[in-house]
Amino acid sequence: MVQQDTLDRVFACLADPVRRGVLIRLGDGPASVGELTEPTGMTLTGMTKHLRVLEEAGLIVTEKVGRARLCRLAPAPLDEAMAWIAFYQRLWARRLDGLDVFLTLRGGARQQEAPPGSTPPQEPRQRATNPSDDGKGPGE
Amino acid sequence: MVQQDTLDRVFACLADPVRRGVLIRLGDGPASVGELTEPTGMTLTGMTKHLRVLEEAGLIVTEKVGRARLCRLAPAPLDEAMAWIAFYQRLWARRLDGLDVFLTLRGGARQQEAPPGSTPPQEPRQRATNPSDDGKGPGE
Repeated sequence: MVQQDTLDRVFACLADPVRRGVLIRLGDGPASVGELTEPTGMTLTGMTKHLRVLEEAGLIVTEKVGRARLCRLAPAPLDEAMAWIAFYQRLWARRLDGLDVFLTLRGGARQQEAPPGSTPPQEPRQRATNPSDDGKGPGE
Repeated sequence: MVQQDTLDRVFACLADPVRRGVLIRLGDGPASVGELTEPTGMTLTGMTKHLRVLEEAGLIVTEKVGRARLCRLAPAPLDEAMAWIAFYQRLWARRLDGLDVFLTLRGGARQQEAPPGSTPPQEPRQRATNPSDDGKGPGE
């Protein structure tokens, strides 16, 4: 069961280029708040706000080491975000495939009924049901 | 080349449960603004704001049909969001694997040097370099 809060927080982290940049940098190894801030040209206060958002989403962990605060990547919560997108991409792709088959079959049938040279009628897009889809995604 | 704006917008859409719900509903087929609003208990104005965010991210298209505005799913921009997460998940997993191997080898070497029964020293977590990683992701 996916926690909606987790999805909200993880996707919100990924929606900001500074926060994506921090994750990418921490993929190379732990870094202090100062090391993360320096290349961005931001203030320490500004970066600290981003780091708090990342920490609340569980995507980084921070610890006090001497006088510095060290940040480490904790990528596990990305799994749920990835699973959400992957699940619905597959589901929608299958439904669109089903719709294509439906339209092709209906179009062929109508063409056979219609006088030669007439344009096949436009079908409204409809739900392509698939008995193997229970319609329930990861946690929605 | 991934557009940063696209990632910002798509992830921001996914960060809200109402917007995820709209995408899931539209996966069943097109719906009017009223049909999307009704089950949420929101106001039409509130839902319209969410739909505008989804439309600006290219995740839905809307068109006027008679007196109603019909919304359809346009899932293609999800591909870039998915690709971003997948790329970095793989990269970080490879680096962590490399780090595990490094620590195991170092731990084994230290154990051979150390007196029997002594605890292997803790290694600081370091960057596990991998020559096959150029460190450049999709657009970062």
